[in-house]
Amino acid sequence: MSAFEYLAQTKQGRMNDLFSFLRFPSVSAQSQHKDDVIACCNWLDQYLKNIGFATRIFPTKRHPVLYAEFIVSPKLPTILYYGHYDVQPPEPYELWESQPFEATIRDGYIYARGSVDDKGQVFAHVKGMEAILKAGGQFPVNIKFIIEGEEEIGSPNLVDFLKENKAMLKADVAVVSDTAQFSNTMPAITMGLRGLAAAELYVYGPNRDVHSGTFGGAIANPVNTLCALVAQLHDKNGRVTIPGFYRDVKPPSKWEKEQFKKLPYKEAAYKKELGVSALQGEKGFSTFERSWVRPTLDINGITGGYQGEGGKTIIPSMASAKITMRLVPDMDPVKVLASLEKHLNRLAPKSVKIKLAKRGGSRAVAIDPKGPWLGAASKAIKTGFGKTPVYFKEGGSIPVVGDFKRLLGLDTLLIGFGQNDNRAHSPNECFRVVDFENGCRTAAALPFEVAAAAKK
Amino acid sequence: MSAFEYLAQTKQGRMNDLFSFLRFPSVSAQSQHKDDVIACCNWLDQYLKNIGFATRIFPTKRHPVLYAEFIVSPKLPTILYYGHYDVQPPEPYELWESQPFEATIRDGYIYARGSVDDKGQVFAHVKGMEAILKAGGQFPVNIKFIIEGEEEIGSPNLVDFLKENKAMLKADVAVVSDTAQFSNTMPAITMGLRGLAAAELYVYGPNRDVHSGTFGGAIANPVNTLCALVAQLHDKNGRVTIPGFYRDVKPPSKWEKEQFKKLPYKEAAYKKELGVSALQGEKGFSTFERSWVRPTLDINGITGGYQGEGGKTIIPSMASAKITMRLVPDMDPVKVLASLEKHLNRLAPKSVKIKLAKRGGSRAVAIDPKGPWLGAASKAIKTGFGKTPVYFKEGGSIPVVGDFKRLLGLDTLLIGFGQNDNRAHSPNECFRVVDFENGCRTAAALPFEVAAAAKK
Repeated sequence: MSAFEYLAQTKQGRMNDLFSFLRFPSVSAQSQHKDDVIACCNWLDQYLKNIGFATRIFPTKRHPVLYAEFIVSPKLPTILYYGHYDVQPPEPYELWESQPFEATIRDGYIYARGSVDDKGQVFAHVKGMEAILKAGGQFPVNIKFIIEGEEEIGSPNLVDFLKENKAMLKADVAVVSDTAQFSNTMPAITMGLRGLAAAELYVYGPNRDVHSGTFGGAIANPVNTLCALVAQLHDKNGRVTIPGFYRDVKPPSKWEKEQFKKLPYKEAAYKKELGVSALQGEKGFSTFERSWVRPTLDINGITGGYQGEGGKTIIPSMASAKITMRLVPDMDPVKVLASLEKHLNRLAPKSVKIKLAKRGGSRAVAIDPKGPWLGAASKAIKTGFGKTPVYFKEGGSIPVVGDFKRLLGLDTLLIGFGQNDNRAHSPNECFRVVDFENGCRTAAALPFEVAAAAKK
Repeated sequence: MSAFEYLAQTKQGRMNDLFSFLRFPSVSAQSQHKDDVIACCNWLDQYLKNIGFATRIFPTKRHPVLYAEFIVSPKLPTILYYGHYDVQPPEPYELWESQPFEATIRDGYIYARGSVDDKGQVFAHVKGMEAILKAGGQFPVNIKFIIEGEEEIGSPNLVDFLKENKAMLKADVAVVSDTAQFSNTMPAITMGLRGLAAAELYVYGPNRDVHSGTFGGAIANPVNTLCALVAQLHDKNGRVTIPGFYRDVKPPSKWEKEQFKKLPYKEAAYKKELGVSALQGEKGFSTFERSWVRPTLDINGITGGYQGEGGKTIIPSMASAKITMRLVPDMDPVKVLASLEKHLNRLAPKSVKIKLAKRGGSRAVAIDPKGPWLGAASKAIKTGFGKTPVYFKEGGSIPVVGDFKRLLGLDTLLIGFGQNDNRAHSPNECFRVVDFENGCRTAAALPFEVAAAAKK
């Protein structure tokens, strides 16, 4: 029996296993879910043990890293797989059509927080390995898994883990499935990722909420001031105003422009899917360029003053905004955050106090189109999805890819099984059943393609 | 026994009665407190009945109006007292040092939501009446009370009540104690109030929260856009940019400038009390002018996106801000809100949808310094507080004062017993015990001063 036959015969059980994995509310950002994160890690650890992997759980300052390996022979090449078992917060609950942590299938989609980001995708690789072994096959390469629990909070402890375990993690190529295909009909390999720099801006006014009748007009309002500061972070052409923000930013390369031109783009459909009547972004760039190869600054959340029912005539004591910037190659998150802080301190009026809490970040990644493993990934995807993948980029960030290159000298194959409309980070996150299935098939094929490529 | 002797002998019981009144969480803005509002109204109704008033509860679309009267003779002049038994929301609870609805006395202050705004102040008048009657005295005038339950939500049903009951409410002068003295050592009569215009601005972007990596830079962010809109509502001189906003605004009058000059102003102490290192307001005006006779625009609350612990890398689907504007004489809240809406629609980019929910408002009030009753109020305050009051203005709004003039032809005496640092609308709202006591004494003296003035 082949691994593919095994996959075909075990579809229901495979879905049950995935649902068990999705049932854990492993929300890394929220401390009330700390135990759920651990429980999820332990469940996955046990699962990998059961199919024959040697595993080890590495505690960190916050959520543990799960490591698993199956060493066939030191002579064989080694693939290092990376994924994460933590998920984004589910809020706002009221917008979910079904429970975020009780997966349900509707119209060919699995609905659950983490279904596509990233539990469903990393589990496809686990199931691919299981299929190879259960079908009586042998791995043609050595397999290593790093599955962490802090990706959604910026992987604060992963770099230390990589530094401390370089020998254990030695490999020839890394594989990450935490991205999207180009579309429902176009599987893809992601050739680049944007980096991230995050911070929270606090604006402090009076030492208490005060009556807006008594004091309105005489003192600065922290909410109005926060809005003024945020508004000044972009100019009228949609460019970020932080001095030096674009210093290290290169224009889109010739190769990028060529690849992007090959990809279908229907603005009307893009707007319709998002429910917006017009797009907005940096002047002079296409939507692909704005999303993939240009840096951005967005407020992810803002809060201040009275937000309950009805009104409250106050000048709030404080207001705050969560800020993230998406970075492109050669931008340094540390430098960018320092520039933002300097810029805000210069912009802030004396009538308020401000504080910028820096939350760190990660550099962008660009995959070399001439790398040795791309062909293997392309063949595996052809086997799994029945179509040769296109090359494109992603606007999101997967810090580990840059860390793999920097710390382990590894190139990464970004093989996304998801879709951009799977609502990662949103209510009703979902993962197409057929994408999960084809992902499992791709996973079962990839080790053999890598082994073949290594022989050349 | 005189009313003042009676007050001196019943201090503890009087405080117990006030505490019972303060115990009701009569938060008019929050529907979960609807029954508490009713219970509070019924308690006060019973209290006024017990001291000899004829009372009647008038239901409205939301919270009832309590009316009470004590008619001595149609030949005598009539005083119409106004107050409100509803209170502001207590949030944020965590900043209260004691329970907002379980009054406690610390260092000579009564701490409770509603202690100064307005339960404590209106109750001082009730206690003044009680003292006159219990001491065996007779009212030298007819007394009428309107005590409503919707002041903190803008008195949406009071105008209809006034229109429908003009005959019942016939009087010679109105008295309202819902303002502040000038300071702990300077009792005052308020000669003017600002009006109010309220609205909530909603900004809608994508039809769901979306991943800020995938879509960041390609579509408008509703939070950034809301901030940009709010920021554009003021120019760099602190002036509101709504076209026509200042059309009906007159510069401070000669009389106003004279009165304001008489009042002590220590900017250092003002800043220290608020905990701010610099003031901010409309260029070219003093703090008194900015707070009392200039219009303003403030955001009372803003919300959008993820506000929980940690981060969430999304572009939020929507964001909103609660906006109130303080108006000065001759500004029409309806016109102002229409201008704001037109202005925002002009400013908003096509990449978002916006909606402005208008919450109505009230006109500003200016008391005529040459009116017939000021002397009587001044004498009563001298009796109650031992000092002749100064004249000043208030930045807050008491819509009913304008309605009394417009609908009933009544001038209003604004006799504030509170202080500006009593944290009305804020956590740890308080009312000085001595101010409450002096307020009760002033209340017991006022009817006789008004009767005397009427004889002239």
